Amino acid sequence: MREITSKDNKIVKLCEQLAARKYRDRLGLYLIEGENLLEEAVQEGAAVETVLIRRDCRKIPPGLEDRTYILGDGLFRKLSLTDTSQGSLAIVKKPEVSRKALLEQGAAGNFVVLDRLQDPGNIGTIIRTADAAGYGLVAVMKGTADVFSPKVVRAAAGSLFRVPVVFMNDYDELVTFVRAAGVKLAATCFDTDRYYYEEDLRENVALIIGNEGNGISPELIGRADIKIKIPMAGSIESLNAAVAAAVLMYETVRQRARQGEMCHTSGNH
Amino acid sequence: MREITSKDNKIVKLCEQLAARKYRDRLGLYLIEGENLLEEAVQEGAAVETVLIRRDCRKIPPGLEDRTYILGDGLFRKLSLTDTSQGSLAIVKKPEVSRKALLEQGAAGNFVVLDRLQDPGNIGTIIRTADAAGYGLVAVMKGTADVFSPKVVRAAAGSLFRVPVVFMNDYDELVTFVRAAGVKLAATCFDTDRYYYEEDLRENVALIIGNEGNGISPELIGRADIKIKIPMAGSIESLNAAVAAAVLMYETVRQRARQGEMCHTSGNH
Repeated sequence: MREITSKDNKIVKLCEQLAARKYRDRLGLYLIEGENLLEEAVQEGAAVETVLIRRDCRKIPPGLEDRTYILGDGLFRKLSLTDTSQGSLAIVKKPEVSRKALLEQGAAGNFVVLDRLQDPGNIGTIIRTADAAGYGLVAVMKGTADVFSPKVVRAAAGSLFRVPVVFMNDYDELVTFVRAAGVKLAATCFDTDRYYYEEDLRENVALIIGNEGNGISPELIGRADIKIKIPMAGSIESLNAAVAAAVLMYETVRQRARQGEMCHTSGNH
Repeated sequence: MREITSKDNKIVKLCEQLAARKYRDRLGLYLIEGENLLEEAVQEGAAVETVLIRRDCRKIPPGLEDRTYILGDGLFRKLSLTDTSQGSLAIVKKPEVSRKALLEQGAAGNFVVLDRLQDPGNIGTIIRTADAAGYGLVAVMKGTADVFSPKVVRAAAGSLFRVPVVFMNDYDELVTFVRAAGVKLAATCFDTDRYYYEEDLRENVALIIGNEGNGISPELIGRADIKIKIPMAGSIESLNAAVAAAVLMYETVRQRARQGEMCHTSGNH
């Protein structure tokens, strides 16, 4: 294991760059912090390129000795993404996702579409919930905050190592992909009389989650196959985006578990 | 309307103090920021004591002219809680909640218990979701982060003006209150074979949400009347606390809506 002592070291410089989206996009790399996340990255087969360990920590995940560097306290603190670091930081290669392979497998099942979300905590939480609810894919619309930013990575709690992410430049590209995958676009909106628990959300649903302030774009709502609403008491106008996503994705989980015993009533809103 | 020009002004000093929990607890006051929140506070009858408006903003909610002060840009920025302020800030009196009245009304219905949660975003989001899902009360265990901190207030998005909050010093006090209210304590845990959608969560449930890292305390789980789990795919170990709360509270909403048509099957896990 080598030690890094200079703040002009190439790896230190690279870490600093990766705090900015521009460099993450350009280099196809991102940062993870914390022993648990690093351990999970290794377990899930993520491409860990470099590990930086604070001198007093020295807990190196087995198998990564050849790419691990020791840093002094001051230098580590300079690179750390949190105030209360556990003392390990790693540079990870973004996963490569082949849309063709995804479509050929035909096995994405349900997936979630992020329509220009901005809050990193929400984005990470939605990816974590998608993973837990068995949603097999996250499609990210252009205009969404970076899925590989440190705050998203932290909130996703390891789920970014498991759930594949695809990026869409515009709604046409999304709709083409959705059609090829054989799934239906589902949007929440006010202009519907169907509650989410009245629709069959078990299979082949691409669930759109909208921007925190403005919701799903009207254009995308217009192209949705399923339009649903979530009931809200009193004068509440909306739910937090990650909460709405969770309520809808877990309705899929519930319906799948209850499949043999679903109540097929209709016209009962 | 008066103008404040000195940073030594009494109201300016008070605002600065209210950034700290110690003073919020001692004075029974808290801060809200933003036009929408201020408007909602007035609508919902919250006790707005003082309004501070940035000079270029000058949008004073009707009826509050007598307690509104104009501040220069620099002084306002010093007090503002966010980087992108809309230019209005207010000091609000914490609502007084009578447990006796709550119990006499017997009308709290379902409520939510926060067991030492630490993340302000989670706490605020849970209060907002409780409001939307018709949960009528939030019980806060000692050791939970301050429900009236600026970050919680922002994430609660107005719901703190509507949902009453009671504070519990220990689990005995909580259990006594829960028994007096005639509701059942519900906890999520691993040590159960019941999924949340297999329990009747429609009425008289006090739903416990646990600390982000450690979950619900074992002592409280031991005293729960209902023990449920949320299914999770793959190697996921837990959900975000606000997500778990949303999934469970919205199961109440769904069950209430589907009441006439519930499927009473059992032994089908």
